[in-house]
Amino acid sequence: MTITSSAIRGRTDLCTAIENELSGLIGKRASAATAYGPDFARLWALAGQNVLGGKFVRPLLLMETYDALCQQHQQYGSADSRQRENAISIAAAVELLHYAFLLHDDVIDGDLVRRGHPNLIGSLLAEASTSARTDGRDGADGAHGIHAGSPLHWAQTCGILMGDMLLAATHQSFARANLPHELRLRLLDLLEHTINETVAGEQLDVGLGDGVIAPDLQTILVMCGYKTATYTFELPLRAAATLAGADFAVENSLATAGRHLGLAFQLQDDLLSTFGDPRRHGKDPFSDLREGKETAIIAHARTTHAWPDIEPFFGMPELSVGDGEHVRRHLSDCGAEAFVQGLIEEQMQAFNSQLTTTIPASVRNVLLDLAGQLEGRQS
Amino acid sequence: MTITSSAIRGRTDLCTAIENELSGLIGKRASAATAYGPDFARLWALAGQNVLGGKFVRPLLLMETYDALCQQHQQYGSADSRQRENAISIAAAVELLHYAFLLHDDVIDGDLVRRGHPNLIGSLLAEASTSARTDGRDGADGAHGIHAGSPLHWAQTCGILMGDMLLAATHQSFARANLPHELRLRLLDLLEHTINETVAGEQLDVGLGDGVIAPDLQTILVMCGYKTATYTFELPLRAAATLAGADFAVENSLATAGRHLGLAFQLQDDLLSTFGDPRRHGKDPFSDLREGKETAIIAHARTTHAWPDIEPFFGMPELSVGDGEHVRRHLSDCGAEAFVQGLIEEQMQAFNSQLTTTIPASVRNVLLDLAGQLEGRQS
Repeated sequence: MTITSSAIRGRTDLCTAIENELSGLIGKRASAATAYGPDFARLWALAGQNVLGGKFVRPLLLMETYDALCQQHQQYGSADSRQRENAISIAAAVELLHYAFLLHDDVIDGDLVRRGHPNLIGSLLAEASTSARTDGRDGADGAHGIHAGSPLHWAQTCGILMGDMLLAATHQSFARANLPHELRLRLLDLLEHTINETVAGEQLDVGLGDGVIAPDLQTILVMCGYKTATYTFELPLRAAATLAGADFAVENSLATAGRHLGLAFQLQDDLLSTFGDPRRHGKDPFSDLREGKETAIIAHARTTHAWPDIEPFFGMPELSVGDGEHVRRHLSDCGAEAFVQGLIEEQMQAFNSQLTTTIPASVRNVLLDLAGQLEGRQS
Repeated sequence: MTITSSAIRGRTDLCTAIENELSGLIGKRASAATAYGPDFARLWALAGQNVLGGKFVRPLLLMETYDALCQQHQQYGSADSRQRENAISIAAAVELLHYAFLLHDDVIDGDLVRRGHPNLIGSLLAEASTSARTDGRDGADGAHGIHAGSPLHWAQTCGILMGDMLLAATHQSFARANLPHELRLRLLDLLEHTINETVAGEQLDVGLGDGVIAPDLQTILVMCGYKTATYTFELPLRAAATLAGADFAVENSLATAGRHLGLAFQLQDDLLSTFGDPRRHGKDPFSDLREGKETAIIAHARTTHAWPDIEPFFGMPELSVGDGEHVRRHLSDCGAEAFVQGLIEEQMQAFNSQLTTTIPASVRNVLLDLAGQLEGRQS
């Protein structure tokens, strides 16, 4: 079997293939949804817009790794095109899972906006606020968190429900994969592991924010790994290895490399949010401080003499620009910025040393390409 | 093949089998959860207590129908015991689905109590309230529904996350069923249909409560069917028919009969809540009125001359006992009580006429036994 030209596919072709698969998965459900009335159909229409507007980071990583592993094994015969369709289908399901997590995260965080645009909850809130019947009841109920009777309650409920349907759709794609049952069971194991770990990470994140869990550095690093690295890096890499029939040693090396890279990305996100140029990353430069987000930066600052000067401003919703700049200077001077830069370097060293193990050269390039995006990142 | 003694199993044996299966499903996950720390493990411990304390209405209906269909086909040879294990596994998964729906419903409704005991959210709220760190931040954020930073936010977040894991566990059981792939796909179709319809029902229910959807009788009846009858009656009956290899005509008759029975139960719930004896049903006799719950009773009352006397009290959180009795009298005098009794009779007639079609005699008895619970029901 030789490597055919189909083995060399550009990222654009991959994006198109993933987009087509997602369009099919969502389109089928959006059509069926119309039978349940306009409000139900609206959920699928909005979810479709949002999912298809994504950057497909996770499915691209899965497919590029899969293609590289198959190229390594010189596996591209015509008989393997059905195999590749299965990979595309699992890659698309990974994107649905990502969006399910985002939606429930948005409900939990009370977020109405994502990347500068209204998210599903924000869109439904705007629509409900303009069309709500006014029957003199406000239904507000201070004791119970979400206020029944408000357009926000409606919109957040829709966020929970749509997240449930996307989680279900993810499982349906994994369960229906046209693979030997044994292989399908391995993918189902991987999906279960991923969901458990992501949920554990989300729970830690919320527990830290709500003051239920103590904010020590170790907990924060574990949280970052669970909440993001597992499903963003480990899941696509392990799924690609499983689908390509790679050795378990290769799969494990890929997963370890992915976790180190994922943690480096997450730590860099925190640095950019606090010290980055808001003209480049486009976010409120003090939102992490205003929210009182427990990051590795803050965990380090707590251990320094600067903390008494920082603490009064931490988690202060009405933090002024002047106060924000004051806190940022303290965080830099006390060594918290440099400390987290050091953590990122450690993760990148561990990542690089994984690359020299059992990972085939073709796959190494996929990962190095991804790691290259870390350097010089501004947003 | 003759009917062996194992074909005649009592309900106690069935309960034990279902309980063992659920213990296994939850126990395995509870053990794995300990690796993620005490807060994550607590989720599975609480969910296990709550799921195993249930009455198993849905899995019992599934198994009794399955056994009756197999008995009809005289299918109990020793080779069929593995088949029956699959049925037990799907029955247990249906109970996990029920609990996933309950949890997300409790988050959406802000409920902390179920059947007189704290639900998972209520338990975690009590635990977090006594152990929360006090760091001077309350994190309250009036604009965003769930208040970040409060023990309630933590407890409701855990409700969303645990519901997600139970939804995932349900799918895992369906996807792993040791059945021919074709049969597994039919069960996966059924699961998808069930989740879509239940979500559509929940969305309608919340839309009615939040004043986003107009409360006409037809919408309320459709909502009742979708939200409860589909997963409580149609799902177990269709799954039993699929697993027992029954004709599609039999499956459809069972599903239709189940939907009528389910709607009758739901309408009777509404009647009991409003007109029943609180010493018997144990609930606040005016909670539906205080919440402004859009029931068939209210939909009918809106169309009568009595509505102007009822409306001022509807959805009034501080409704007094005297006011509640006044409204109840009006609802009875205006014919709303009798109207809903008539709807129940219609549903029961439609149910009974389904029984005389293609449904085998053995299964008919299972359904008649269930319907018998409707008569003389006080809670």
